Amino acid sequence: MTDKQSVYQQAGYGQKQVGFGEKPALLLVDFQHAFTNSEYPTGKSPLIKQAAAETAELLELAREKDIPVIYTVVGYREGQWDTGNWKTDISWITVGSHAAEVSPEVEPVTGEPIVLKKYPSAFFGTEVLSLLTTKQVDTVIVTGCTTSGCVRATIIDAFSYGFKTIVPEECVGDQAKESHDANLFDVNARYADVLPKQQVVDYLTALKAAPITT
Amino acid sequence: MTDKQSVYQQAGYGQKQVGFGEKPALLLVDFQHAFTNSEYPTGKSPLIKQAAAETAELLELAREKDIPVIYTVVGYREGQWDTGNWKTDISWITVGSHAAEVSPEVEPVTGEPIVLKKYPSAFFGTEVLSLLTTKQVDTVIVTGCTTSGCVRATIIDAFSYGFKTIVPEECVGDQAKESHDANLFDVNARYADVLPKQQVVDYLTALKAAPITT
Amino acid sequence: MTDKQSVYQQAGYGQKQVGFGEKPALLLVDFQHAFTNSEYPTGKSPLIKQAAAETAELLELAREKDIPVIYTVVGYREGQWDTGNWKTDISWITVGSHAAEVSPEVEPVTGEPIVLKKYPSAFFGTEVLSLLTTKQVDTVIVTGCTTSGCVRATIIDAFSYGFKTIVPEECVGDQAKESHDANLFDVNARYADVLPKQQVVDYLTALKAAPITT
Amino acid sequence: MTDKQSVYQQAGYGQKQVGFGEKPALLLVDFQHAFTNSEYPTGKSPLIKQAAAETAELLELAREKDIPVIYTVVGYREGQWDTGNWKTDISWITVGSHAAEVSPEVEPVTGEPIVLKKYPSAFFGTEVLSLLTTKQVDTVIVTGCTTSGCVRATIIDAFSYGFKTIVPEECVGDQAKESHDANLFDVNARYADVLPKQQVVDYLTALKAAPITT
Repeated sequence: MTDKQSVYQQAGYGQKQVGFGEKPALLLVDFQHAFTNSEYPTGKSPLIKQAAAETAELLELAREKDIPVIYTVVGYREGQWDTGNWKTDISWITVGSHAAEVSPEVEPVTGEPIVLKKYPSAFFGTEVLSLLTTKQVDTVIVTGCTTSGCVRATIIDAFSYGFKTIVPEECVGDQAKESHDANLFDVNARYADVLPKQQVVDYLTALKAAPITT
Repeated sequence: MTDKQSVYQQAGYGQKQVGFGEKPALLLVDFQHAFTNSEYPTGKSPLIKQAAAETAELLELAREKDIPVIYTVVGYREGQWDTGNWKTDISWITVGSHAAEVSPEVEPVTGEPIVLKKYPSAFFGTEVLSLLTTKQVDTVIVTGCTTSGCVRATIIDAFSYGFKTIVPEECVGDQAKESHDANLFDVNARYADVLPKQQVVDYLTALKAAPITT
Repeated sequence: MTDKQSVYQQAGYGQKQVGFGEKPALLLVDFQHAFTNSEYPTGKSPLIKQAAAETAELLELAREKDIPVIYTVVGYREGQWDTGNWKTDISWITVGSHAAEVSPEVEPVTGEPIVLKKYPSAFFGTEVLSLLTTKQVDTVIVTGCTTSGCVRATIIDAFSYGFKTIVPEECVGDQAKESHDANLFDVNARYADVLPKQQVVDYLTALKAAPITT
Repeated sequence: MTDKQSVYQQAGYGQKQVGFGEKPALLLVDFQHAFTNSEYPTGKSPLIKQAAAETAELLELAREKDIPVIYTVVGYREGQWDTGNWKTDISWITVGSHAAEVSPEVEPVTGEPIVLKKYPSAFFGTEVLSLLTTKQVDTVIVTGCTTSGCVRATIIDAFSYGFKTIVPEECVGDQAKESHDANLFDVNARYADVLPKQQVVDYLTALKAAPITT
């Protein structure tokens, strides 16, 4: 046990499990060429590419079971001062460009919302919350990238809005393994169950088909 | 340069500085006995106690300059299902209890809002945003605890809402130094300027007195 | 049919019913002495007092059925610039004062959250949304005052967040009958089912006891 | 003085003026073919068409003075359950369709954000708030349609977020004059200054050019 683990354990963090609910949704955060395609400066991490590939299995299961699937992509518009105070230049990820397209590993099908976002959290300044509430979702399965950026922010918000938040660890990726690990430690101690993907697969498999209608 | 630093630098993170604006506010996140007083399981970290002591200097300067000062404390009410899905038992931090009181190092004076919160971010489910907007604040100086919990969440939201976000590094604290460092790295790469306290002191000192009136 | 009704009907408003869901919550907006007690300038409307009395029946039923009950009260703190830009002086409704106490007609019992708010909507800057999501509520029954102020704002937000929104018309009140009617017309055309209280009583009565557990 | 006016005046509403700030933004809510073009069922109101025409003068002034201009349009996507619980069928206003295009009376120029919204308020589930905060806006001039729908919701949020909210009355329109008047009465009593357009023109004219830079 590392020093960090021991300190957090003694302070009482990570004692409880969140557990699964009855009405999950699958959220795919920013699996887009900008982060998975090595032709872009931010797309060179094999860890993110692999996370996208791993997510494909969950996506297939979610569709089989008629579980709501929601994508987000980041994208900006020239001259529209919508890039805020990011410390990295992200203005080149323009709405409608190749960099803002969903990665082929997790290609959307018709009827799956692809929500445009500007800020870290999938919930911030978007309709994601209303989409979840409309479907009476109680459990949000968070996948995507990056673990230490938009995924972390999305997990905090999903938790704060009252959802059971589940993170299949193979399905989130980061530029650096060290950042990935540190952030999963943080959120697992406080907000979410970070689980092997197989446990999420088992949970989804056991669900009755089409549990959600509107 | 560590592997993490090099990977993030190559991907273009942390290139820009946010910079200071003209109308700052000082935010003190959860400097309360629960986290600074060693009689509580979550209050044993000397790093947090020290961060509170370091913040006192900024607090004094802010008051001299009539800069808005906002405190938050976490607190819950028995039986009111307001504790959400925290993975640590925080229900013992009840509203009005000693654990929910602001620490003596940074004691509030009359007229300084002490905002009750339930979730990680100082903004989530609170009036903090409206307080800032009402005063036309453009720069939020974030202090408090814990760096890897409520401070991190608050920084993400301050950034997302469009504020210039400044973190004087001695003024935020964590249960573990490793978590503190990892989170400051993450936010400095993306959302905020993490600076030595002295730079924030210099900035505040140089401000004209009473820049904000309503 | 008035001109207004005819114009809205031709434009296609109010065509659909929202309907009831399976997990309701009862929301009581600002039934507090400031608005129901004639010793206050804003408390002289018999329509509001009557709405509080009518709501007592729903409250009793909700408790019988273990349906979540949430109160809000408005309240401000001296010197804390938390009153925003209201065009009426509301700073005299201070937190903890008699004016900020829930009216005796609908007295809370232990375990029922009384959420402090500053702005019109019960959701704005409060934990109300998280309380509802934590309980997987799908239907929000809005009661309280005033119909043309905080009730109207609360209905818009409940709708926007994806809840089925129900307004038992005898259970909301206003300073003026004309404002009450005009606002119920607006929301019934767009966002919510405005229904005779008896239909809500019938719905709650038919619910199985204790449908919600956490 | 009508009964309504007298009751509200006695209760102390509408006593104060909000006043103008120093950094305004011009918000155009849903001036799109769906509401201004008579080929659509919701586009037959001459009052809305006229409001768009009246707004052109403010738009020209705002551009001269380099004041931020933000448009919203509503739009939905087939099969994406993003229409919530509207009581009118609005699913025919699809993203990218003619009905979702800004009206020619107030045609946008390059660099002016056209924000997609799904719900009544221009702020709900959108980046509008961050756009305003990024520009340090303190005053929101609300124009658009409909007065008793999305304009009303937008005014409530602008007020709640702490902005000085101004409504040039000729620049907002509704399906019915009666609804328009009733809603302007409500918001003028509580949240915003409802003013003759000429006063807003005079205010903008008196501003120094280019007061806002980022």
